[in-house]
Amino acid sequence: MSSRVDLRALEEEARERLEPDAYAFVAGGAGDERTVAWNEEAWARVSLRPRILADVAEVATGTMVLGTEVAAPILVAPVGMARLVHDEGEAALRRAAASAGSLLVLSTRTSFPVAEIAEAADGPWWFQVYVLRDRGLTRELVERALDGGAAALVLTGDTPLVGSKPRAARHPLEIPDDVFMPGLSRPDGGPIGEYPGAEQDPAVTFEDVAWLAELAPDVPLVVKGVLRPDDAELAVEAGAAAVVVSNHGGRQLDGALPTAVALPEVAGAVRGRCEIYVDGGIRRGTDVLRALALGARAVLVGRPVVWGLATGGEEGARSVLETLTLETAEALALAGARSPAEVGNDLVQPMWQS
Amino acid sequence: MSSRVDLRALEEEARERLEPDAYAFVAGGAGDERTVAWNEEAWARVSLRPRILADVAEVATGTMVLGTEVAAPILVAPVGMARLVHDEGEAALRRAAASAGSLLVLSTRTSFPVAEIAEAADGPWWFQVYVLRDRGLTRELVERALDGGAAALVLTGDTPLVGSKPRAARHPLEIPDDVFMPGLSRPDGGPIGEYPGAEQDPAVTFEDVAWLAELAPDVPLVVKGVLRPDDAELAVEAGAAAVVVSNHGGRQLDGALPTAVALPEVAGAVRGRCEIYVDGGIRRGTDVLRALALGARAVLVGRPVVWGLATGGEEGARSVLETLTLETAEALALAGARSPAEVGNDLVQPMWQS
Amino acid sequence: MSSRVDLRALEEEARERLEPDAYAFVAGGAGDERTVAWNEEAWARVSLRPRILADVAEVATGTMVLGTEVAAPILVAPVGMARLVHDEGEAALRRAAASAGSLLVLSTRTSFPVAEIAEAADGPWWFQVYVLRDRGLTRELVERALDGGAAALVLTGDTPLVGSKPRAARHPLEIPDDVFMPGLSRPDGGPIGEYPGAEQDPAVTFEDVAWLAELAPDVPLVVKGVLRPDDAELAVEAGAAAVVVSNHGGRQLDGALPTAVALPEVAGAVRGRCEIYVDGGIRRGTDVLRALALGARAVLVGRPVVWGLATGGEEGARSVLETLTLETAEALALAGARSPAEVGNDLVQPMWQS
Amino acid sequence: MSSRVDLRALEEEARERLEPDAYAFVAGGAGDERTVAWNEEAWARVSLRPRILADVAEVATGTMVLGTEVAAPILVAPVGMARLVHDEGEAALRRAAASAGSLLVLSTRTSFPVAEIAEAADGPWWFQVYVLRDRGLTRELVERALDGGAAALVLTGDTPLVGSKPRAARHPLEIPDDVFMPGLSRPDGGPIGEYPGAEQDPAVTFEDVAWLAELAPDVPLVVKGVLRPDDAELAVEAGAAAVVVSNHGGRQLDGALPTAVALPEVAGAVRGRCEIYVDGGIRRGTDVLRALALGARAVLVGRPVVWGLATGGEEGARSVLETLTLETAEALALAGARSPAEVGNDLVQPMWQS
Repeated sequence: MSSRVDLRALEEEARERLEPDAYAFVAGGAGDERTVAWNEEAWARVSLRPRILADVAEVATGTMVLGTEVAAPILVAPVGMARLVHDEGEAALRRAAASAGSLLVLSTRTSFPVAEIAEAADGPWWFQVYVLRDRGLTRELVERALDGGAAALVLTGDTPLVGSKPRAARHPLEIPDDVFMPGLSRPDGGPIGEYPGAEQDPAVTFEDVAWLAELAPDVPLVVKGVLRPDDAELAVEAGAAAVVVSNHGGRQLDGALPTAVALPEVAGAVRGRCEIYVDGGIRRGTDVLRALALGARAVLVGRPVVWGLATGGEEGARSVLETLTLETAEALALAGARSPAEVGNDLVQPMWQS
Repeated sequence: MSSRVDLRALEEEARERLEPDAYAFVAGGAGDERTVAWNEEAWARVSLRPRILADVAEVATGTMVLGTEVAAPILVAPVGMARLVHDEGEAALRRAAASAGSLLVLSTRTSFPVAEIAEAADGPWWFQVYVLRDRGLTRELVERALDGGAAALVLTGDTPLVGSKPRAARHPLEIPDDVFMPGLSRPDGGPIGEYPGAEQDPAVTFEDVAWLAELAPDVPLVVKGVLRPDDAELAVEAGAAAVVVSNHGGRQLDGALPTAVALPEVAGAVRGRCEIYVDGGIRRGTDVLRALALGARAVLVGRPVVWGLATGGEEGARSVLETLTLETAEALALAGARSPAEVGNDLVQPMWQS
Repeated sequence: MSSRVDLRALEEEARERLEPDAYAFVAGGAGDERTVAWNEEAWARVSLRPRILADVAEVATGTMVLGTEVAAPILVAPVGMARLVHDEGEAALRRAAASAGSLLVLSTRTSFPVAEIAEAADGPWWFQVYVLRDRGLTRELVERALDGGAAALVLTGDTPLVGSKPRAARHPLEIPDDVFMPGLSRPDGGPIGEYPGAEQDPAVTFEDVAWLAELAPDVPLVVKGVLRPDDAELAVEAGAAAVVVSNHGGRQLDGALPTAVALPEVAGAVRGRCEIYVDGGIRRGTDVLRALALGARAVLVGRPVVWGLATGGEEGARSVLETLTLETAEALALAGARSPAEVGNDLVQPMWQS
Repeated sequence: MSSRVDLRALEEEARERLEPDAYAFVAGGAGDERTVAWNEEAWARVSLRPRILADVAEVATGTMVLGTEVAAPILVAPVGMARLVHDEGEAALRRAAASAGSLLVLSTRTSFPVAEIAEAADGPWWFQVYVLRDRGLTRELVERALDGGAAALVLTGDTPLVGSKPRAARHPLEIPDDVFMPGLSRPDGGPIGEYPGAEQDPAVTFEDVAWLAELAPDVPLVVKGVLRPDDAELAVEAGAAAVVVSNHGGRQLDGALPTAVALPEVAGAVRGRCEIYVDGGIRRGTDVLRALALGARAVLVGRPVVWGLATGGEEGARSVLETLTLETAEALALAGARSPAEVGNDLVQPMWQS
């Protein structure tokens, strides 16, 4: 196991290491970046109510997500074009996730061919799907993912268009052709980068969950981007096996409520009918504990893993996952819980104002 | 269409460009400028609850205000003496609003003759009225506005006197005679600037709405400055076709509640009996979305348009309006709404504390 | 009438003008000075709900306090040893209050003989009483005040001992004998400064209100320092003609609740059975308006008047009072009220969080 | 009695005096140190509602804790390895507590042999117990404490493992063998520092309260680390004579709720069936007053006493205790209470937000 890292210091190190445009691409959010800030703050506002003298001699962080065992309730969130921060990009993320006992949710916006990433390591992985304007291209995407062994599809629902990001706009990023979804080709044979058909289709609806299910009848479907109880209900009705409570890391609609606030509302609507994950602002094992207590089965972590990748490649990304796992084990023990299953809502008290 | 501008950066640019007195005249507020700050903060405290997977392939920002079609629910707020920040003053604002598909609410405190401003462009405009101590002069004002084609009168009700502004007082502004309501003359023929009859009449009441209606029987009347449900009720009873929820941009009574807090209270009292607009602190398309969700039909934008005017004349002011329109379209799409009509109260959640 | 001053700037000017020890003596508070800060913040947290179009052509700030007419609901709070900041001390305050149509509440801790202060101007004044360990000395104090024409006695109830003030302790102040209650003598004839009998008597109770009433049967008694409804009830039962909601400007018990929070609770208990005043953190006419709306008949202002005294003597202190009066008139007009009597609780909305 | 010290300034002085690693060892907390900050803030958010005119001529701070009289409701919290900040370590703390009429709760992690500390002064002391993996060693610990005259055992329940402290990790501290629990020996005779059996046993439960009671049938047992009503109930059922509401000074689970928030909840559950103490963030006599009003019989003070020890040895630590006692007396008087027994819940008003 690699050494424990200071996740707060790591972002600073990544900022120094990366070109300003690449750093802004990852760190930036939509609009005035209020939701980016709220995501972190909202977890901190949930205070913990630890149990004492509870016999935590044996603490196990492992859990199951859609039937797959993971070492901790911590998955790697889809991050686009990982080669922009490190040469090995998603291949390194894949290996890091596998060796840490975690699971990569591979972004549609890969910077290596999907097959290469799939083969980079053993172990489960999932594929994040944008339904693109060109449905044929979308079908091709999904098929390649299934061929590569993706064990679930994660449909991102909060991106009918890409949210404006003033910080990123101040640091324009040039994306080489071979970094944007290589291995796919547009109907006319040119690079995929400028192809309108490769944009997110703004007409996607919950009915497309059924369309995806037909394309991929053998794997479960996850709907990502849910912030409202009614949308969670629609996802369940459309056959989702899980939802991800997410505001896209504050990168889409600035001012969207923080996920720590949305999570218990969604959990109240779902009432166990599908699994619930959450992302956005998770920076510590204590945040993982809060997420579990508020109704999530697992969290997805994006930016911290990217900072690990940027500063240390596969090893760096793995250190981040292992650090979070260690911190989660510690948080469980200090809260008096031996496993994620023992974490109940009584362990948190929302709305204490820091 | 002109290029999208960064509205946060624009104020900084205007501050550098303008003389300190002109900048303070526009930016400053009453007293300790608490309401100025609250206006912006209060929108940010309203968190958004976006819908996902809602088919937003076709998003249209257009709406109707008092029977007039506008390209977006964004009007230009009345701003006094616009020539103090740019040579073309209100004429440029008139042209910018017209070319952006918006609508200028021309201030009583014009710095060009009303007829010149009216003729500067085609397209609708409204006239903001102060009832002055000299009612004859007021009548003359209104007649000139109607002659110039004003499609509505907007009676400002929150200015029985002009609120003290310490910041502006520290940067005293000399206003040349020809910049203060040129084209009007006082009974004794001198310049209007020092004429007591040209001051706001502190005795104005809701009964003067009827008086204005007699002067202008063919155009609708709007009451601006409403912050209380009971005053909204009085406005409706007096025959107002619309109210503007406003605290005069924090320039009158410091400590007045922010408009984002007053808006839903007023909407609850009006219950559809007249149209509702709002101003104060609107800086982003997401703020426009919040205003719609809290019950407004449109917003009025003042200072940002003036920063556009100060830095780029007509073109600069238009860029501000177009940027806000683009941002509003994006916010609608990301919230899962295809038009202002699809924006309901469920899209917001008040009182999340940043 | 003297010119309007910027009260925020005035404290800065006073800080530069005064010796650090004298500045700390006036500005400092008890403990960590949290209550000092809270007092100002708490007024700001009360947002105003102005009425519009209400005919405020005639605004009058005058009111009655215990049967005495004052130009505005603004009295001068008792401040100890005013000669430490200006040679003319309380005499200047007396003249400033009289010429501004206000009323000085003279502190027990005078730095001139009471008779001299009383004779310094015409017009009403009140005397603030500490019941001292030496009851004979207390009787002498009260008799001199009555001889000098004090129209009311204000018993300060929150000072069984003098609260510790770390800031003042870091700037120890030497108080010359002739500045500490001159004109009084201790039984053994020495200076009063070191005399234990001149300390506040910690055994004072509400029964001493009756004792004072016997000493001064012809003037009304006021109890100052009330923060709780039950103490207000006791004051009413003891025969107080008025109470002052006060935490001694944050100089006694640090952490005591701010007066803007205590005021409506006290008003609810008093239900008109006596008059209510309030002090602590009043810095603007809008704060006076808030105090009236929350149930006070008048405010007492301390530090700002001292900054006026420190920087401009009698004239400076008067400017402060006149500025606050002008601001109060403006705040009344902008809120749609013609007089203090028209200010109701509906003009404020507590607990908006800045 | 030694002179009164400024406790805010004292930490600064200690920071300058100590090596960075020793300072970080004492000052640091777990994780992002949010709970460390919350502890202090939470007391400040409880505003005080003082009574006036209540005859406080005689104020006595003394109280009883588990049948022992102390000069004030202020005990010395267990602090580990006090020799790291001063040569005389716990011996100095023992003497300081005794001479101030307080009581030392000696940490399991002593840096002198227990007997030496016990003999360093007369007067009562208590012993804080960690149940260690090696139960025999634990038994030895307890026996030595009882031999030394410990009048109570305080079982710390919130430390199944030692929480990670990033700040301390950045300033690694080398602990010499003779500073870590000297006088004890591991079964194989080596130093205790590296011995796994000397670690906290993570399997400890409320049943071990009974086990300790058997080891020490003649002294009362206290359970420290309670933050939840249900754990307080379990402690009462297990026979605890008292509980300490504590989050270990923010050193264990970062994000744990502040003790000022947990205290009234615990008091509501205990309903007088055992005594309640509280620690965490107590820095002023007004904080002691708040703790009493929220249901505590006494407070424990850790870091401030260590800063006194670091800067002035026994004398410095005693000054801290005496200052807090003086401040508590003053706070009682200013709140209108003559003794801890007169402090009721009506003296505080939670949730005023600074």
